[in-house]
Amino acid sequence: MTRADALRADGFLGGRLTITQPVVGYRAGADAVMLAAACPAKSGESVLELGCGAGVALLCLGARVDDLQLTGLELQPGYADLARQNAKTNGLPATIIEGDLTHMPAALRSHSFDHVIANPPYFASGTIAPDAGRGTARHEDVPLSLWIECGLRRLQPGGWLTLIHRAERLAEILANLGARAGEITILPVSARTGREAGRVIVLARKGARTPPRLLFPFIMHEKPSHLTDGEDLSAEAHAVLRQGVALNLRDR
Amino acid sequence: MTRADALRADGFLGGRLTITQPVVGYRAGADAVMLAAACPAKSGESVLELGCGAGVALLCLGARVDDLQLTGLELQPGYADLARQNAKTNGLPATIIEGDLTHMPAALRSHSFDHVIANPPYFASGTIAPDAGRGTARHEDVPLSLWIECGLRRLQPGGWLTLIHRAERLAEILANLGARAGEITILPVSARTGREAGRVIVLARKGARTPPRLLFPFIMHEKPSHLTDGEDLSAEAHAVLRQGVALNLRDR
Repeated sequence: MTRADALRADGFLGGRLTITQPVVGYRAGADAVMLAAACPAKSGESVLELGCGAGVALLCLGARVDDLQLTGLELQPGYADLARQNAKTNGLPATIIEGDLTHMPAALRSHSFDHVIANPPYFASGTIAPDAGRGTARHEDVPLSLWIECGLRRLQPGGWLTLIHRAERLAEILANLGARAGEITILPVSARTGREAGRVIVLARKGARTPPRLLFPFIMHEKPSHLTDGEDLSAEAHAVLRQGVALNLRDR
Repeated sequence: MTRADALRADGFLGGRLTITQPVVGYRAGADAVMLAAACPAKSGESVLELGCGAGVALLCLGARVDDLQLTGLELQPGYADLARQNAKTNGLPATIIEGDLTHMPAALRSHSFDHVIANPPYFASGTIAPDAGRGTARHEDVPLSLWIECGLRRLQPGGWLTLIHRAERLAEILANLGARAGEITILPVSARTGREAGRVIVLARKGARTPPRLLFPFIMHEKPSHLTDGEDLSAEAHAVLRQGVALNLRDR
């Protein structure tokens, strides 16, 4: 992303948040909002987002839960600047640190957090994206295993890691959580009733030992197929995406 | 199980099969029928069941697909005898081999199969069951990892492993399939709509590489809770359990 890129302000959580993002390039959407909804942070706790982009997930979380200490790590200066600006615009204090999760900045290495959230890039490297910003944000220059390892390392014992990723990566996510985390809760996300999961949200607790739970899928859209031009979000998806309601995985 | 144990004949697949099992002790039920329904065996192919018990899954599969070469491995002589007797009673030729999967009998070591199916014991060792037969069939004297390893080893390249197990063991199943199998399809089984999965059926192809799919759950019961004394199976569960319809995971 360069300064010349066109930007646009979009509303999130039914307009409660206004987020400026590039028109072309990596744009956060429903996945970031779902990630924020699934993080079980409570007032007074600290949250680190790995790869925060323009700050959508971090700021959605800050909008839902009062008095969080929000920290975002972002590799790309342009996105880090946007995240700072978006935090300010929305009146949500957040510390955005520019840096590489594979060379964790000193400011973060000395900290541990109650929560880490991440929406790691979804596409394996190889395809060349038309712009560099989009390429870095969407492509896996850093393997998923490192996102998980860095996330777990930045957590306090008993802290919670929340991830959203493509469903086909579930085995890899579980393998990388391995013995270092437990109380794993897997929420498949299906576009419609009956469809296989497109995404999974995985919540895991550092150092815990209890066995994983595989929840009934979260269903994004109401009808069996997309029939109209309008939104056909399910009631629950509407509550999460438009009203900022929490996705309480542990009580599901 | 001893000869003195009481036995009872139960109908499976809406009465198409009659299976004699001990009244007290390990008794196969819906899980075995679901396992058979999920195995994609076609006429002329060979199938090995690890730990076949009284033969319910193997014989359900034989009842659905003509002209299969059915082989069952069973540790406990009493159950192996029952499986032989049940195969005969139902007019389904099956070779039942008495032996331990951790010391694979020579007759099996020299064979590879198109399909391996297994419903490994669900409960960790520790609790003492009131009778020895039940204890062995339900308890994990052999770790799940060995069931998977032995199953994969007995498959031809490109052969299919079908497992049913508790949903909380999904991470372990996926980790043990590791890089040795692909085209993994995960079917969560939920008691009712909205409930977390109690079981998972996992289908995997030896030597394949394509990424896993997480299917929408199979739902056992129709109504939100059990309201009547009668059966309230969902239409699909009724088709699988009472009519012997296949659960075609790959086309779901």
